[in-house]
Amino acid sequence: MKASARLSTLLPDGNDGWDLYRKALARQNAGMPVTMLTIGEHDIGTAPAILDAMDAAARRGLTGYAPVPGQNTLRARVAERIERMTGTATAEENVLIVPGGQAGLFASHIATLDPGDTALFVDPYYATYPGTIRGAGGLPRAIVTGPETRFCPSRDALAEAAPGARTLLINTPNNPTGQIYDRVTLEGIAEACIAHDLWLISDEVYETQVWKGAHLSPRALPGMAERTLVVGSMSKSHAMTGSRIGWVVGPAEIIAHMADLATHTTYGVPGFVQAAALWALQQGPDLEAEVSAPFRRRRALAEQALAGNNRIRALPSDATMYLMLDIRPTGLSGSAFAEALLEAEGIAVMPGESFGHAAAGHVRVAMTIEDEAFAEALARLARFAETCPSGTPTNYEET
Amino acid sequence: MKASARLSTLLPDGNDGWDLYRKALARQNAGMPVTMLTIGEHDIGTAPAILDAMDAAARRGLTGYAPVPGQNTLRARVAERIERMTGTATAEENVLIVPGGQAGLFASHIATLDPGDTALFVDPYYATYPGTIRGAGGLPRAIVTGPETRFCPSRDALAEAAPGARTLLINTPNNPTGQIYDRVTLEGIAEACIAHDLWLISDEVYETQVWKGAHLSPRALPGMAERTLVVGSMSKSHAMTGSRIGWVVGPAEIIAHMADLATHTTYGVPGFVQAAALWALQQGPDLEAEVSAPFRRRRALAEQALAGNNRIRALPSDATMYLMLDIRPTGLSGSAFAEALLEAEGIAVMPGESFGHAAAGHVRVAMTIEDEAFAEALARLARFAETCPSGTPTNYEET
Repeated sequence: MKASARLSTLLPDGNDGWDLYRKALARQNAGMPVTMLTIGEHDIGTAPAILDAMDAAARRGLTGYAPVPGQNTLRARVAERIERMTGTATAEENVLIVPGGQAGLFASHIATLDPGDTALFVDPYYATYPGTIRGAGGLPRAIVTGPETRFCPSRDALAEAAPGARTLLINTPNNPTGQIYDRVTLEGIAEACIAHDLWLISDEVYETQVWKGAHLSPRALPGMAERTLVVGSMSKSHAMTGSRIGWVVGPAEIIAHMADLATHTTYGVPGFVQAAALWALQQGPDLEAEVSAPFRRRRALAEQALAGNNRIRALPSDATMYLMLDIRPTGLSGSAFAEALLEAEGIAVMPGESFGHAAAGHVRVAMTIEDEAFAEALARLARFAETCPSGTPTNYEET
Repeated sequence: MKASARLSTLLPDGNDGWDLYRKALARQNAGMPVTMLTIGEHDIGTAPAILDAMDAAARRGLTGYAPVPGQNTLRARVAERIERMTGTATAEENVLIVPGGQAGLFASHIATLDPGDTALFVDPYYATYPGTIRGAGGLPRAIVTGPETRFCPSRDALAEAAPGARTLLINTPNNPTGQIYDRVTLEGIAEACIAHDLWLISDEVYETQVWKGAHLSPRALPGMAERTLVVGSMSKSHAMTGSRIGWVVGPAEIIAHMADLATHTTYGVPGFVQAAALWALQQGPDLEAEVSAPFRRRRALAEQALAGNNRIRALPSDATMYLMLDIRPTGLSGSAFAEALLEAEGIAVMPGESFGHAAAGHVRVAMTIEDEAFAEALARLARFAETCPSGTPTNYEET
C-alpha cells in the first residue's frame, strides 16, 4: 500500500541532513571515541529543581487531560515574558501552548497555508524547514542568502521571492549561522510581508542565546503583530529539550483557531510538563542566563583556538549555541571536511550542506561539550584544517 | 489576516460538540453542584507507581531529545503486547510512538491522504474525527449507521461509500456507542478495504475495556496487516490521559515514513513519559484490568438503575467506559434531554448529537464517578426520564 504522496516526498532525496550525525553515533556505538559537536543539546540536563516542579504537579493530580490551548497561568506567564522582552502588547489569548517548537512550526504552517500554497524560507535553514512545509501540504521555496550578507535575506531576494507566496518562515537568532537579523534586515522582511500580504512565521527559539547586539522580534515592528506568528520553546532557553513544550504567539483570532486545530492534532501538552515550564519561567531571566552562560564562554574559547588560522574563517558569532566555520580555504566541501575530520580526529561537526545550499563550504559546530574538552577539540579541528591542502573551492556538493 | 481555509473550516458550524460539557463546567464554576458524566476521564489519576517510574527516569537523565520514533525498548514492548493480544506478527519497526491517540489519528491521515482525497468515517463518531480529516486536508465522508445494526456499518453502506475513497477510519470498541464490532462486521470492512484499495485506520484505544465478547483487531484479518494502521494509547488502558502517549502500528515502510513525518511535526515524545509508559506496560494485563474494573462494576449498577424504565432503552453495553441510552421514548432529542437533565437534576451527560447524526435521540453517559454516586445519579436520571412526556420522537435536532 502506498503512503500519501506528500509523505513519500517529505524528504525528496531521502536525505534528512543528519547522515554525518548518524555516522558519528555508529562509530560511538562501535566503541570508538567521538567528540560530538553535532546536535543542539545542552551538556547539562534539565535542572533538578524543574524536575521537582514536574513531579510535584503530577503528585498533586495534574495527570488528567489538560486544557488544550494550555493552562491559563502558563499562557499568561508566556504572554508577560514576551511583552517584557519585545515591548509588544501580549495577552493570554495570544498564546497557544504546544508540544515543542517543531510542533509550533508545523501548526503555524497548517494554520496559514492551504494545500499547494507557496511557503518561503531562508537558506541556510534548520534541517526540518522544507519538510515541515511539505508535511503541511505547502510548496517550499527557498530564499538563498550568502556569506556576503552574513546569510541575511536582502530586500532584492525578498522582493523576488514574495509574489504569490502565502508565508515566510525566518529564524533569528539563526541556526545554523549564529547570526542575529539586524533592524534593517527585519524592516526589509516586514516590508515584503506587508506588500505581498504574507504571514510571517518567526522562529525565535534561540532568543536567550545572544552574545552581541540584541535580538529584535519582528512582531514588534509596525503593522507586523497582526500578521506574525512567533514560535518559542523551553528547549534551548531552559535546557528542556526532551520535555517538548513551547508556544505560538499571534493574533487572538488565529490562536483560537489553532487551539481547535490542537484538539484534532495533539490534544494539548501534559499538565505536569506545563507546571514544570511555569516554574522555570517564574525564575525569570537569571535561570535563562545561567543556562546560556556555557555557550558564551565556549564562543570565546573557540575564538582563541581559531585565531590566525589560514584555513578557517569563523563567522562572527552573535548568537546561539552554534558556530559557523567557513572552511572553503581548505578546498573541501563542508561534507568532505566533516567526513575527513570525523575519520582523522574523531570529531563530529555538521556539514553546512545539511542546512541547504547557501551554507556549502561551511561546517556548524555545536558548543555543547564541557569547556576544556571543547577548547581542546577546537584546537584539534584548527590543526586538522591546517593540514588540508589549500585550494580554490571547486568541489562543493551543492546537491 | 486570514487563516488558511482548512483551519477556518475545521469546524464548519463552529460547533465542536462540547457545548453541553462547557455549560456544565460553567455551572460548576458558578458554585452549583454538577454530577459530571461527560468526558472520558477516569476518576482515579495516574497511579503513583507510574509517576515514580517517570520521575526516576527524569532523574537519571532522560530529559534530552528522545529518539523520534520512540525508545526501542518501548517500541518492542508495544509490539510484543499487540502480537500477544491479536496474534498478528508485530516487531519494533511496526511501531511508532506518538504523543497520544489523537496525534496518532492525525498522523495516520497525513500519512495516507493527499489534500482533497476522500476519507471515510463511521457515524456516530468520536467528536474529533471529521475535523482530524479536514485538518489533514481530506474530505470527510460519513457512513451513517443506526440503532438497528447497533451502530455497526453494514456491507451495503460500506459498498456505497467506498468507491473513490482513500481511507476508512473505524473505532472498535466504540465511543460513543459502547459496542464491539463483531467478526462479520469486521469482515465486511476488510472486504470493502481490499476491494477499493483503502487504508484502514483502526482506533482501538478502548481495547482493554471489554465487558462482553472479545475485541477483534481488524489488522488480524487476512490481507489487512498490510493496509491497516492501528492507533493505540495509554490514556484509557492505564489512566494516563494527561501523559499524551500512544502509538501507531502498521507496515514497517509507512511507519518509517511516519517517523520522518514526526521529525517535522512533533519531534517525538518526552523520554521520561516513554519510561513511565514502559513501566506501566511491563506490569502486564493485571494493571489494565485494575484500571478498567470500575467501569465493569458501574455498568452493572446502571443496568439495575434502568431496569424496567419506560422512557430509556440502554443499548447493550459490550465495552468502553460509556453507556449509550436511547431516550427517544421521551420524545426529546438527545440535546434537549441533556439540557433538561442538567437544568433539573444537575447531571451532565453528552447528547448523542455531539457524535453525529446517527446517534440523535440518544445520550452518552460516562461511567467516570465513584460507584455509589454513579448509581444514585443513574437512579435520578431514570426518574427524570419517567417525568418526560412520552411521545413519538418528532423533534430530533439532526443538524
